[in-house]
Amino acid sequence: MMLLLQTYPNPIKENPAYSVVKQFFVNQDDTVPKKVVVQKDSPRGIHFRRAGPRQRVYFESDDVNACIVTCGGLCPGLNTVIREIICGLSYMYGVDKVLGIEGGYRGFYARNTIQLTPKSVNDIHKRGGTILSTSRGGHDTLKIVDNIQDRGINQVYIIGGDGTQKGAAAIFEEIRRRRLKVAVAGIPKTIDNDIAVIDKSFGFDTAVEEAQRAINAAHVEAESVENGIGVVKLMGRYSGFIAMYATLASRDVDCCLIPESPFYLEGKGGLYEFIERRLKENGHMVIVVAEGAGQDLIAESMKSMDHEDASGNKLLLDVGLWLSQGIKNYFTSRQKMTINLKYIDPTYMIRAIPSNASDNVYCTLLAQSAVHGAMAGFTGFTVGLVNGRQTYIPFERVTEKRNKVVITDRMWARLLSSTNQPSFLSSKDVEEANKTEEQPKQTSGEVKCLENGST
Amino acid sequence: MMLLLQTYPNPIKENPAYSVVKQFFVNQDDTVPKKVVVQKDSPRGIHFRRAGPRQRVYFESDDVNACIVTCGGLCPGLNTVIREIICGLSYMYGVDKVLGIEGGYRGFYARNTIQLTPKSVNDIHKRGGTILSTSRGGHDTLKIVDNIQDRGINQVYIIGGDGTQKGAAAIFEEIRRRRLKVAVAGIPKTIDNDIAVIDKSFGFDTAVEEAQRAINAAHVEAESVENGIGVVKLMGRYSGFIAMYATLASRDVDCCLIPESPFYLEGKGGLYEFIERRLKENGHMVIVVAEGAGQDLIAESMKSMDHEDASGNKLLLDVGLWLSQGIKNYFTSRQKMTINLKYIDPTYMIRAIPSNASDNVYCTLLAQSAVHGAMAGFTGFTVGLVNGRQTYIPFERVTEKRNKVVITDRMWARLLSSTNQPSFLSSKDVEEANKTEEQPKQTSGEVKCLENGST
Amino acid sequence: MMLLLQTYPNPIKENPAYSVVKQFFVNQDDTVPKKVVVQKDSPRGIHFRRAGPRQRVYFESDDVNACIVTCGGLCPGLNTVIREIICGLSYMYGVDKVLGIEGGYRGFYARNTIQLTPKSVNDIHKRGGTILSTSRGGHDTLKIVDNIQDRGINQVYIIGGDGTQKGAAAIFEEIRRRRLKVAVAGIPKTIDNDIAVIDKSFGFDTAVEEAQRAINAAHVEAESVENGIGVVKLMGRYSGFIAMYATLASRDVDCCLIPESPFYLEGKGGLYEFIERRLKENGHMVIVVAEGAGQDLIAESMKSMDHEDASGNKLLLDVGLWLSQGIKNYFTSRQKMTINLKYIDPTYMIRAIPSNASDNVYCTLLAQSAVHGAMAGFTGFTVGLVNGRQTYIPFERVTEKRNKVVITDRMWARLLSSTNQPSFLSSKDVEEANKTEEQPKQTSGEVKCLENGST
Amino acid sequence: MMLLLQTYPNPIKENPAYSVVKQFFVNQDDTVPKKVVVQKDSPRGIHFRRAGPRQRVYFESDDVNACIVTCGGLCPGLNTVIREIICGLSYMYGVDKVLGIEGGYRGFYARNTIQLTPKSVNDIHKRGGTILSTSRGGHDTLKIVDNIQDRGINQVYIIGGDGTQKGAAAIFEEIRRRRLKVAVAGIPKTIDNDIAVIDKSFGFDTAVEEAQRAINAAHVEAESVENGIGVVKLMGRYSGFIAMYATLASRDVDCCLIPESPFYLEGKGGLYEFIERRLKENGHMVIVVAEGAGQDLIAESMKSMDHEDASGNKLLLDVGLWLSQGIKNYFTSRQKMTINLKYIDPTYMIRAIPSNASDNVYCTLLAQSAVHGAMAGFTGFTVGLVNGRQTYIPFERVTEKRNKVVITDRMWARLLSSTNQPSFLSSKDVEEANKTEEQPKQTSGEVKCLENGST
Repeated sequence: MMLLLQTYPNPIKENPAYSVVKQFFVNQDDTVPKKVVVQKDSPRGIHFRRAGPRQRVYFESDDVNACIVTCGGLCPGLNTVIREIICGLSYMYGVDKVLGIEGGYRGFYARNTIQLTPKSVNDIHKRGGTILSTSRGGHDTLKIVDNIQDRGINQVYIIGGDGTQKGAAAIFEEIRRRRLKVAVAGIPKTIDNDIAVIDKSFGFDTAVEEAQRAINAAHVEAESVENGIGVVKLMGRYSGFIAMYATLASRDVDCCLIPESPFYLEGKGGLYEFIERRLKENGHMVIVVAEGAGQDLIAESMKSMDHEDASGNKLLLDVGLWLSQGIKNYFTSRQKMTINLKYIDPTYMIRAIPSNASDNVYCTLLAQSAVHGAMAGFTGFTVGLVNGRQTYIPFERVTEKRNKVVITDRMWARLLSSTNQPSFLSSKDVEEANKTEEQPKQTSGEVKCLENGST
Repeated sequence: MMLLLQTYPNPIKENPAYSVVKQFFVNQDDTVPKKVVVQKDSPRGIHFRRAGPRQRVYFESDDVNACIVTCGGLCPGLNTVIREIICGLSYMYGVDKVLGIEGGYRGFYARNTIQLTPKSVNDIHKRGGTILSTSRGGHDTLKIVDNIQDRGINQVYIIGGDGTQKGAAAIFEEIRRRRLKVAVAGIPKTIDNDIAVIDKSFGFDTAVEEAQRAINAAHVEAESVENGIGVVKLMGRYSGFIAMYATLASRDVDCCLIPESPFYLEGKGGLYEFIERRLKENGHMVIVVAEGAGQDLIAESMKSMDHEDASGNKLLLDVGLWLSQGIKNYFTSRQKMTINLKYIDPTYMIRAIPSNASDNVYCTLLAQSAVHGAMAGFTGFTVGLVNGRQTYIPFERVTEKRNKVVITDRMWARLLSSTNQPSFLSSKDVEEANKTEEQPKQTSGEVKCLENGST
Repeated sequence: MMLLLQTYPNPIKENPAYSVVKQFFVNQDDTVPKKVVVQKDSPRGIHFRRAGPRQRVYFESDDVNACIVTCGGLCPGLNTVIREIICGLSYMYGVDKVLGIEGGYRGFYARNTIQLTPKSVNDIHKRGGTILSTSRGGHDTLKIVDNIQDRGINQVYIIGGDGTQKGAAAIFEEIRRRRLKVAVAGIPKTIDNDIAVIDKSFGFDTAVEEAQRAINAAHVEAESVENGIGVVKLMGRYSGFIAMYATLASRDVDCCLIPESPFYLEGKGGLYEFIERRLKENGHMVIVVAEGAGQDLIAESMKSMDHEDASGNKLLLDVGLWLSQGIKNYFTSRQKMTINLKYIDPTYMIRAIPSNASDNVYCTLLAQSAVHGAMAGFTGFTVGLVNGRQTYIPFERVTEKRNKVVITDRMWARLLSSTNQPSFLSSKDVEEANKTEEQPKQTSGEVKCLENGST
Repeated sequence: MMLLLQTYPNPIKENPAYSVVKQFFVNQDDTVPKKVVVQKDSPRGIHFRRAGPRQRVYFESDDVNACIVTCGGLCPGLNTVIREIICGLSYMYGVDKVLGIEGGYRGFYARNTIQLTPKSVNDIHKRGGTILSTSRGGHDTLKIVDNIQDRGINQVYIIGGDGTQKGAAAIFEEIRRRRLKVAVAGIPKTIDNDIAVIDKSFGFDTAVEEAQRAINAAHVEAESVENGIGVVKLMGRYSGFIAMYATLASRDVDCCLIPESPFYLEGKGGLYEFIERRLKENGHMVIVVAEGAGQDLIAESMKSMDHEDASGNKLLLDVGLWLSQGIKNYFTSRQKMTINLKYIDPTYMIRAIPSNASDNVYCTLLAQSAVHGAMAGFTGFTVGLVNGRQTYIPFERVTEKRNKVVITDRMWARLLSSTNQPSFLSSKDVEEANKTEEQPKQTSGEVKCLENGST
């Protein structure tokens, strides 16, 4: 749950030391039922506090000493979130002391900080990447909290994915253990859109838009030769959202392969058969494959070729290259059919662009929500859109599982009907998929439809 | 309500002639409660049928003779909707006979039709405008229905705004009067996002994105001179959604004026005072104005200058030119302050571009929903996203009132806090705004949060 | 001619004070004939020194105190030129002291300067406008040179158009009069491409590229309605280069009107007749008009309506609005033909964008040439591409006349054959045009073919 | 040489059969000296005929039966050239019969043709690729000429690269042998800009522009991590023009490797040392490598690892992957330095886009020149810009050698001074490079400066 420098629902009793915060809980905003957003489809009827400004502010503006850190891979919108935390603190609360931690978690203890002001970040939302630079790993809870303590930091904004949010939770726990009055707020970042609970993650819309360039190029290349096949690999290690939406948006894709929908290559109903048929009908085709798709098939093929070439594994683990090679081999050696395959991997070209208008709005709201939450004295929360509303979500909720494409749901059905690709499913598969979906009942990233609480 | 070639809720009794359709109502899809989407905030608790494929199809594929018409001004995504109706009919239902009515409503009786096939429309979604061409007006119900009857058309897809949907309702009524078995389906089009009930209209997201170019240009021009003012007029005759979202997305706008939020120019708390202050602080500023903003002020100033220049009226009715002239006059003659104002009207450059990825997905879903509805035998409905779900909505619901920015709602508050512009409101205004909002209680276009019915 | 802190060709004799510079003239680079670029088509066989690094450098790196100023309207590439002067001075010559003069010429005496470093300008070429901001006028030679003297500036880089280069010449003369050892270098800026002598001006290519958006929008709008006419006004006060190249690039334009080619509206062979015919053939058309086209016609129509509306003059002087109104009036009142005209003025949206790749290369070379020239001790010169080669050109050469589209030349003939528009010329006009062209014989901006000197 | 359905200079005597063409040679256009463009820097003082309309036309419009074929890889602008040949033939000469040969050379004998009209190609210049589709190889001179003869084709327009132009020469020879009155015109296509004689090839400018996206992404990725290295592979099998211009345009590249400039990896002055230094100074860097760079190094490294892994060869021959792996190995295993390398290969995303405005103009002029030439009865020629002028060039001239970056020339020097990368040259190398350049003396692709003949 989201916390007010304390554990919800009854912080004062649990930790009497924090009585300073007591008055906060009685402010009107948080007791009014309409402020609570309930995640309907969840079996447990989870309630999240609605984000927004509170009547009472916990921190004095002059006392605030905030810091921002970005962790993990790049994602469009990082700079917008950074900018809006700084501008939000300054314009909405008159806070002037904001430090940038450079280079991810390890920047807390291994590098200098930089002072951030509204003026110094004025234009950064028009650039890709992160001005704070980033890194993976480097999470050393004790060193980090020591550093927070030493610097007198009392608001920590952490922008990052799944692993980063887990790290944020550990920092929050350690801070609580030390009884520091430090707010820890997370802004979830995942270009793959695979963070649970929230409707969609920032940068996702931009990624889908930019992916169109690669698909267009693949389509043009495929269309311009005989038996042309364009293969585009898109991000999505565990979830195929980018691949699915990019396919739906493009109208030029003949087949979309995602981690959630197992497929097979050979035999009746297999991918190769489908490719052959589509080439005969249209003369060309475009395949979009999420990077996490077909990992079991790759693992299997690795095993079978284990003896000959152990060193090649790494390269072959790229599903795009692996699939491209497989298709080429099949048609050239077995089918004696000349095909013309072009493989495009636009990953870095997508990750590195600035966020589009829609994501800019979203990043702004997320940053403002985080600022309102921290200023109000909440801690241990991540911000996110749930059921179309800005909310505060406890760290553990967003890290305990992943958001995935539900292949028995409407959106995937729409994709199938639009590409006419095989479902690669036996009826048994469908039943099983239905069964596992019945309880949690999650809809797709676009339209996570939740009920408003009415308690 | 949405109708099955009949009036809901009990078509068979009312019009026994339609018993052929009877079995449709008993199919499982439509009786299961979860298929009903309820518009929560409405005082009347309106329920809409959820869109999607039905188990029983009313039309035989070979018997379908569909037509498509586009009416009103341009909007990004028109060609995607056209393409997806044709592809949906062909790929999902095997329907091959689709006619294009050219040049809007009057095309039914004044021009030839063109045959549309998946192949002929394959690439049109990458182009702006409408391949069917469009027009305003030209709605002659009797002539149109005569023509529909003469050509043996039995599915009519009508893409257009408010007025067009009213026309579609009239056509539907006349068709019902004549007891023709013709399905009439509307796809609501408004770049302004001002159609009631639905979450957002197609093309809106693209428009907000493209508006960034104009705002960027205004910002660069303003920043590059002393006392530079960039004024950008954006679409929005009655609703300021594009202006509001474009402002939130840009982070470069100092003031956003919309029809829903009255403002005044002179005196304390007025626009001129704010401009002067902002110029002194920053040296430059950017103003975004929706085309429908300040119409009362313009009307008033027209009256006062009535004697001198009656012929100039038309030009002055453009709020952008009027406002630009007003600002120039104020600072030059009254304040003796040299300002440097640049006015940009990007309207046509925004309307004419192809839809972006996000709108392409949305247009596809709308078109598929319309096709599923018509094939299932529904008629007299418009499709739309309500509470994040594709639904069928009776014509009258979407035309009876307009969607507007609620200036007491969060999104406008966020805008105000991000621009720091004056609210131009006395406390009396706020009270009144609250009062008028209490009954209908509509939230903004982005997050129309509705409850799922559970009856 | 270009000068080495002195007047070419024999500076030492004329101004003995400058003997320090003597050795410069004997360096190999400048005596080798191949370094001289000759402007062939000129009647006077003008020779320009080729730009580039010289073996002997006049200034010690540590002694250089450079400043940069931008004047006049915006143009894509300003920031790239600024960046590359700073980076060129720093990386090629180890010069660290570079001041930015803010707000154009008046910034010398009315505002503070800012220190510019490679780091502070690292990303500016990706932004439109000028980070130094700009203004028109404000040229006060004495004040400016006083200021240069007071600050100990010894290299002045002036980026601006025709008027600015004249100002630079005046500054140069005053500096020479005072016998200051200050190099004055101009970088010619005109988005219109109308600066004489040089092959093309920076930003022009970007402008032509960006103009395509407006023409596309006009085309889509026109195509989507009956009798649709799209009118696009493009930059070009005295020269129609942008209009001509944008028309040739687009392939969607039916008529291009430029200042160099007079036209008439009514009667046989007039514009209205052509519009009517094209609408009958194609149903729609696109007109591109340079802002300086038809000024005589406007002046005339102003005179004739003088009595009624003196105050409206300013608005009507915009050729785009004037032409649009004229076409509307003609077809509505006289021809009883319903037309649908959309007018687009993309001027500010074009001026304010960053330069494209081709212009970035060009801006870089111009800046490097200017730096090499100033470091070598040249002064009183402007840099430019002549016959495909970077050269140093005396100020007076680039300001004494304008570059214009030669309407008897190939490029305009290609345009006419591609649009099939009337030439609006009587045979007498052609003769006259030929006559006036014979002596100076200038070809168009794209292919200014000049001979290489061989003596 | 360029030919008038005959060999220049005295076709009639050589082949009396062609007397019909005689009068052509006496037309004014071709005898006037100013129509001849001389390639100055060539040792042989080659003269080319200037392209353009001729006073006498060889073919009757109604008799013309033209065909167009595209061969080889994709290049921006192919569709514009196709469109403008068709529109040029139709609008300038009233020719209506134009066939499209599909799928490259083999389309002449293995596939059906399609009829092409101005209407059917009206929008194709806004799409990438080629609507005629293309292929490599398939050149069977006899079959092709048989087919030309059978179909009664008398104008053949062949768009393609080096190999394709050689094929066109063979077709032309066979046609001459058979004494057919068929004009064969080539339009040279190479995205690499490596075709000799001509100033630049179409699509090159677009490719440089589009390459900026990849370089920007690499820069953002590199800047956002510690010791970030972005590697971008660009087209350029034998010539590094795209890499060189893209580097000059970007201002973000630290090192550019091209086939013309040999480099070495290890030791003093080697690439690895430079990378290490740059990382220490700046913390990140971007490397652009042309696909043909370092082929000798790769070959060598292949040899040395021959025993271990024969199967990996193909992958390693990609210089981008090979270089990336080499850098990773060096820093990880030998330097114990953690680097973060991102490799981007944007090749297909660049090739497949539509041409930009500048290339659209160029493609239009090339197509019009080809049409004028063929209609005037010329044959056996290719069109091209020489010294800024449209000319007709004999096939053999453009195929006998390649255009290359001259590394002792100014443009490469500018690149070196802008990146500050090592030259990788010993003084011996420079001498040798100078020696080999002395006779042919070719300047770079941008500014091929040639003299106008005067004989």
